[in-house]
Amino acid sequence: MQTKTSNIIEAMEWRYATKSYDTSKTIEDEKLDILLESVRLAPSSYGLQPYKIFVIKNSELRNHLKPAAYNQSQITEASALIVFAAKTNISSEYVSDYISNIATTRGVEKSEVQGFGDYINSTISDFSDDQFTAWNSKQAYIALGVLLQTAAELRVDATPMEGFSAEKFDEILSLKEQGLTTAVIAAIGYRSNEDTMQFADKVRLSKSDLFEII
Amino acid sequence: MQTKTSNIIEAMEWRYATKSYDTSKTIEDEKLDILLESVRLAPSSYGLQPYKIFVIKNSELRNHLKPAAYNQSQITEASALIVFAAKTNISSEYVSDYISNIATTRGVEKSEVQGFGDYINSTISDFSDDQFTAWNSKQAYIALGVLLQTAAELRVDATPMEGFSAEKFDEILSLKEQGLTTAVIAAIGYRSNEDTMQFADKVRLSKSDLFEII
Repeated sequence: MQTKTSNIIEAMEWRYATKSYDTSKTIEDEKLDILLESVRLAPSSYGLQPYKIFVIKNSELRNHLKPAAYNQSQITEASALIVFAAKTNISSEYVSDYISNIATTRGVEKSEVQGFGDYINSTISDFSDDQFTAWNSKQAYIALGVLLQTAAELRVDATPMEGFSAEKFDEILSLKEQGLTTAVIAAIGYRSNEDTMQFADKVRLSKSDLFEII
Repeated sequence: MQTKTSNIIEAMEWRYATKSYDTSKTIEDEKLDILLESVRLAPSSYGLQPYKIFVIKNSELRNHLKPAAYNQSQITEASALIVFAAKTNISSEYVSDYISNIATTRGVEKSEVQGFGDYINSTISDFSDDQFTAWNSKQAYIALGVLLQTAAELRVDATPMEGFSAEKFDEILSLKEQGLTTAVIAAIGYRSNEDTMQFADKVRLSKSDLFEII
């Protein structure tokens, strides 16, 4: 373990929901690669990764999305906008592709791991679309947590945002046709020196209010 | 930034959903402190931290919970069980306490930050209990993501689990009376040398399947 333990806490204390970005700064490719790779490695239920993640650098598209997010300036001022789109269903075909991926990755016959696929299919067989969307969105929030923590450790700023119209985002990004719906979004980039919120003390529940150790 | 960037990816590659724990090993207090502190610093919508987190070391209680989690061995074999319990409501009193915490933490008059509290109250005024539970559970999943990533960086093993009866967990932990419901749980500890899953290659969607860069 090379990571000094206190570095994690320092990073989490450094981060804040950035209000204003330095529009002259762009995230370096190397940092973006690490950010996305950590998100790709994020855990999810059964390992299904039931989401697709849009990394939107394009200014025109972000300008188009901005009114659908209450015109929050971070949408366009940040270096990129990350859209976590949850699957609205998990088809048996998707599960089958996943099982094939397991077999290929681990160099075994698909038949050897098919039992796991059957098990997954049986547990989700009576899920409604709403249940799929809720379940898959929660998995996307794990990935969001990983994105925010990795960003903090890389000293990349981020703003997680729930203030948007999923319906309008879905329409603009043509998500419905892809069996997806916008679960949560996050801007990433570098804070503006003029964002005074970076100087505000972080407000959190005390340990004794948040945790109960039994 | 002291953290070497590749350490994050190494940590995420090292982790896996641990199937079997070494029952002779206990998480060191120093590591548990860092784990919990990172979770305490995890972001949440409006900063409300709408959950309570139970850290259950007690063997008797974990034995009692085990049947409510399909008798998964990790419940009792791990060093501790973390239960993320989402609030089933956010009362105006809770928001008021939060605003007081902001005022105290930042050394300002409550009246100066009351507008933020009013804004929060207005956005959640027509939430049903189900909406509160869904929203608050998603915030708990961000904290779960942070727990899992910090654990990996500290080389502490973890198993996120959704296979449990929330109803039974709520009953055993007397959560309903506290306005809480079990959202998700995770075992933490140290992997058994005999857990063969630690040697299995990690299966993930390819970058091109998971991400769309625009």
